[in-house]
Order: sequence, then C-alpha cells, then structure tokens
Amino acid sequence: MSWFEDNGPEGDVVLSSRIRLARNFDDLPFPGIMDKDKANTSVKRCKNALLDNGNALSPNLEFVDLGKMDDISRQALVEKHLISPELAQDYEKGALILKDDNSISIMINEEDHIRIQCFSAGLDLEKTWDLADKVDDLLEENVSYAFDKELGYITACPTNIGSGMRVSVMMHLPVLVKTGNMKSVIDGITKLGVTARGIYGEGSQALGDIFQLSNQVTIGKPEIEIIENLNGLVKETLNAERTTRDALLKNSRVQVEDIVWRSYGLLTNARVLTSDEALKLLSDVRMGVNMGIIEVPLAVLDKLLIMIRPANLQLIYKSKLSPSERDCKRAEYVKSALSKTEV
Amino acid sequence: MSWFEDNGPEGDVVLSSRIRLARNFDDLPFPGIMDKDKANTSVKRCKNALLDNGNALSPNLEFVDLGKMDDISRQALVEKHLISPELAQDYEKGALILKDDNSISIMINEEDHIRIQCFSAGLDLEKTWDLADKVDDLLEENVSYAFDKELGYITACPTNIGSGMRVSVMMHLPVLVKTGNMKSVIDGITKLGVTARGIYGEGSQALGDIFQLSNQVTIGKPEIEIIENLNGLVKETLNAERTTRDALLKNSRVQVEDIVWRSYGLLTNARVLTSDEALKLLSDVRMGVNMGIIEVPLAVLDKLLIMIRPANLQLIYKSKLSPSERDCKRAEYVKSALSKTEV
Repeated sequence: MSWFEDNGPEGDVVLSSRIRLARNFDDLPFPGIMDKDKANTSVKRCKNALLDNGNALSPNLEFVDLGKMDDISRQALVEKHLISPELAQDYEKGALILKDDNSISIMINEEDHIRIQCFSAGLDLEKTWDLADKVDDLLEENVSYAFDKELGYITACPTNIGSGMRVSVMMHLPVLVKTGNMKSVIDGITKLGVTARGIYGEGSQALGDIFQLSNQVTIGKPEIEIIENLNGLVKETLNAERTTRDALLKNSRVQVEDIVWRSYGLLTNARVLTSDEALKLLSDVRMGVNMGIIEVPLAVLDKLLIMIRPANLQLIYKSKLSPSERDCKRAEYVKSALSKTEV
Repeated sequence: MSWFEDNGPEGDVVLSSRIRLARNFDDLPFPGIMDKDKANTSVKRCKNALLDNGNALSPNLEFVDLGKMDDISRQALVEKHLISPELAQDYEKGALILKDDNSISIMINEEDHIRIQCFSAGLDLEKTWDLADKVDDLLEENVSYAFDKELGYITACPTNIGSGMRVSVMMHLPVLVKTGNMKSVIDGITKLGVTARGIYGEGSQALGDIFQLSNQVTIGKPEIEIIENLNGLVKETLNAERTTRDALLKNSRVQVEDIVWRSYGLLTNARVLTSDEALKLLSDVRMGVNMGIIEVPLAVLDKLLIMIRPANLQLIYKSKLSPSERDCKRAEYVKSALSKTEV
C-alpha cells in the first residue's frame, strides 16, 4: 500500500508532507552538463550506497530504470509527485530509487545529482524529516557531497544552496476557497517566506482546492528552523480552514449539504468526467466528509485524486486512451470506486 | 388513482390529451357580469344535471366548493390543469364538478357558465372526445344552451364561438429542444392553425421541454375535423421527436447517457431544488427512459412533474412553506419518490 492511501495527522486538511534534499557529488559536473559516462557513475554510486550495502532500508528500495519505461508510466510517476516533470522528459541520464510504499523517492541526475524526497500522509514533518535525514546519512557514509563550510550544500541552482531543503505540505482548503478567503491567506503566507501554489492549476483558482505550501529560502537557516516555520504557518492555515468550516456549517448548512451531495450525485452517475471536473467534485465530497455531511473513506477520495489523472488512469486500464476515451473511463472508474463504499 | 398516473398511447412523447367545451345558458348573463343570485342558479343547474340525476357518471362525480378551500388547495387544482388561474383567483361565484380520477373537470361560472374539460393519458383524442361529448349530452338533456344555428355555441369571448371546443395535447419534446429544432417545428405548426405553448414558461425555452399543442380556430369546422387536424400535427411532431432521438442515440450516445445520468444523480442527491431546475432534470430523465438509457417508471416521473409544483408540494407536506423551505422539501420529496423505484 502506498503512503497516500493512509490518512495521517490533521488529515481533514493536510493531505501530505514532503521534504526534499538536493545533494551533489563533489567530483562530478552538474547533470545539466555531464556526459553519459559520468551520469552512469553518479547512478552507480547511489545504487551502491543505498541498495547494495545491506542497510536496513535496502530490502524495501527498488532501482527504477526510467529508460525502460514508456511515456505513460513515467508520467504516472510525475502525477504521484515521485519524479519531476523535468526528469520524466529528460530521463536518458536519470534514474530513480523508490521505496515500496512510495514514501522515499530518490531522483538521480535530475537538476542535481541526488534529490532525496520523503513523503508522509497528513501533517508529519518530524517523521518526514527523520526519514530524509536517515537517507541522507546513508548516502553520506558512502559518497562525498559537494559542501562548503560557509554556504552549505552546493546545488546546481543557487536558490537551493545551503540546506538544499524544500519542505512542502499539501493542504485541502475548500472552504477558504469557497468563501473567497484564500487570496488573503496566500498573501499573508507569502510575506512570511512561504509560497502557496495550487498543485492542479495555479493561485487561488487551484483545481481541487489543493495547495502546496513550501519554504522559499534554503540558505542561512538550520533545517529545523525552516521546518518549524512552515509547520507554524500550516497550523495557522489549518485553523483558518476549520474555523471557516464551522462558521459555514452554522450559517449555511443546507447549502453546503446541497453542494456536497450534488457533487457526490454527479461523481456516481456521470458517464463523462474531465480531470478538472472530477477534481472539483472530489474536493467537494472530501469537504463533506470532513464536515460530517457524508461518509466516504478519505483514503478512497485521496487515492482517486491521483488515480483520475491521465497517465495513472491509462495505467489502470492498461491502454493508451484518447482524451475523450479517458473522460469515459474516468467516470467509470470513479463510479466504481465510490460504489464500493457505503454512504 | 388520477388519470395522469397512467401511461397512455404514445406515452413516450405525449403526456396527455385534453378537450374543453365552452357552453352557456341561454337565459343568464355571462359570468363576468352576473350577480351572485344568477351565479347560484347556474351552479344549481349544473349540480342538478350532473349529480342529482342518477346518471351513470354521477356516483363518481363530486361537487367542489372552491370558496371553502384555502388558496393553496385552489392553486393545486390550477397546477393540475383542473381549473384555470382565473377561476382560482375569482372563485366567489364559481364552482367545480370533478370526477374522482380527475378525468372530468367542469368549471362553473368561469369565463363561460360551463367549461367541460376531459383529460386522458397519452394521445387519445377519440376517447377524450367521447367523454366530453357524453358530459355535454348529459347537460344538454337538462339545460338549455345558448346556441345559434349559424354561429354555433355562443360564448363570452368571440374566439370560442362555434364548437366552443379547444383540443390540446401535451407533448414532451426534449430532443427537439436540445437539438435546436423546436423553433422551426413551432413555426410550421403555427402556420397550420395550431398553437404550441410551453406549459411551464413560454415558447421554445419551455421548462421541462413540455409543449401544449392546441387548435386556434373553433368556428366553421365540425368538431371531428378540428380533432383530426390536431391529431395529424401531433403525430408529425411525435415522429420528428422520435426520429431525432434515434439520430442522437446513433451519433452521441455517450453524451446523452451522460446528460440523463447526471440529471438522475442530481435529482437523487440534491438537498435544494427549485421548481425550474427540477422540471429540467425530470425532463432529462424522462427522455432517458424513453431512449432506453435508464429505467424509471414513467408514471413516477409524470406524477412528479405535477407534485413538485409549489401548491401541490405544500399540500403534500400539509403546511404553508416559504420558497426556500419549498426548495428543500421538493428535493426531499423527489429523492424519496425516485428511491422507491429501482434503477
């Protein structure tokens, strides 16, 4: 089972926590300018350090040869946030080491030689950081990182220099969006050094009402401070969403119930569903679950949020589908997934 | 059970047939200018002729005192087309004689002294005419009609002089509307002396895609010719609707299925439903039933088309409801009615 089928702490508002560390070897050119031989060296070093070394993690880690995959399978990894769109596009020199539950994903020869990504369900930055730190240590025991005492870890892009760390929290904020409060929340967050991006679509019009909050600055602060700063802002945003939910229930219960049940009715009956509409409707139902209006397991909804994306959908149906075929299959898949749960 | 809970001939397209005969006594002023005493005389004569005379119909006929009803009950009769909005408004001098299955409704002291209305499910003008003719005969045996050898039956408004007959057929034409063909159908019909009015809203934007086709001219033609003329045009329109349905199924089956099932999903899940939206959605589902896409008894849908109207809804819930309360109760009622049927 993947971590994203789990419901973590503060799961009513927080979908997932992610920590990414950018690392580079001190004796190889950055991936953007390295040749195939050096790229292979980089891949080999990572495999050695993590897979062939008999450490506690290695039995659950798998080496994924991106070059042997088809486009759809690579794209499916992007949709799960396990690799970047850039690595999916430019996979010749790259590789991936993946933990069986998808909670660790190490991209090799993306923008940097090594990008450690760790995920967990809900808001759990401490656990996520522990995991990322452990993987980082495992690597560091075996390889020599590019590191400067003044600057910290050296990265291909100067914005990542220092800790090389990006901390991200994926939040579901349907009521802040519906009540028109999201813009001011984003403005407030941005002033405090945190970006809020819609993960499906940008800004306050984000599809599925899902936003990724992450730190902007990586240099000049210890990791733990960056994490605590983000954690604090996530909790503030989370409280704002919950307070607004309560107020909405108090003042407009019937209207909210109507929105939630209509969306459920469409998801379980439509014969054609675009990805955008499905995200919107799933967001409404997820909101309904968390406001006590409808009972659907969150894990089912959270899995659907990923599985309805074009590439994952095609993997499920094991065939290349045109956009209009996908819209039909998506409707079929959603209907079937929801009909297995009791309402 | 009311006639409208029955599915009649050509029920996939034709909801109901109605024949109305306007008659007046030869010795009383028209209702618009008659005093209360004369109005009572008119009412008494009708009661005598139809109820107190021991004829075959009388056991099933009931005298309805409109003055003893509340506004909502009178309005509910209007929504069922059993009385006119004018009689509901100006009921002091008026009365109603009603058959238990609602297939005969005789308005007394509306615009004319007597308005015989007969209804049947589906397209069955012959049966409807037989019934109207029988009621007319029963009355004529006992009272003296205002009749002129040249002009025919004399009526308050000159547009009804002659046969005093209006033949109406209520048609459900969702696909002609959706494909944008309804306007040209209406234009063609109108040229041939037949009007097509939306029964909920006017013209080609009629809510529920329901249109009433009726003859414009009452004078100079024998009844049977008026009926046959309308019957012919109804059959042409009916064939146009069916042919367009077949073509739509052939070319856009998935899109039609999507429309039908989405509407069903909303009807069975919404918590707030306006009358307009409910009519639109019910029309889509009715279309789906008749195109073999979904199975819901037509009788359930046809009853809902009437019961969701404001006054009937308030009668069902036995209370005066504000518009927003009605929208909630309407959603509740529709959901419950549809959940009793298997899909």
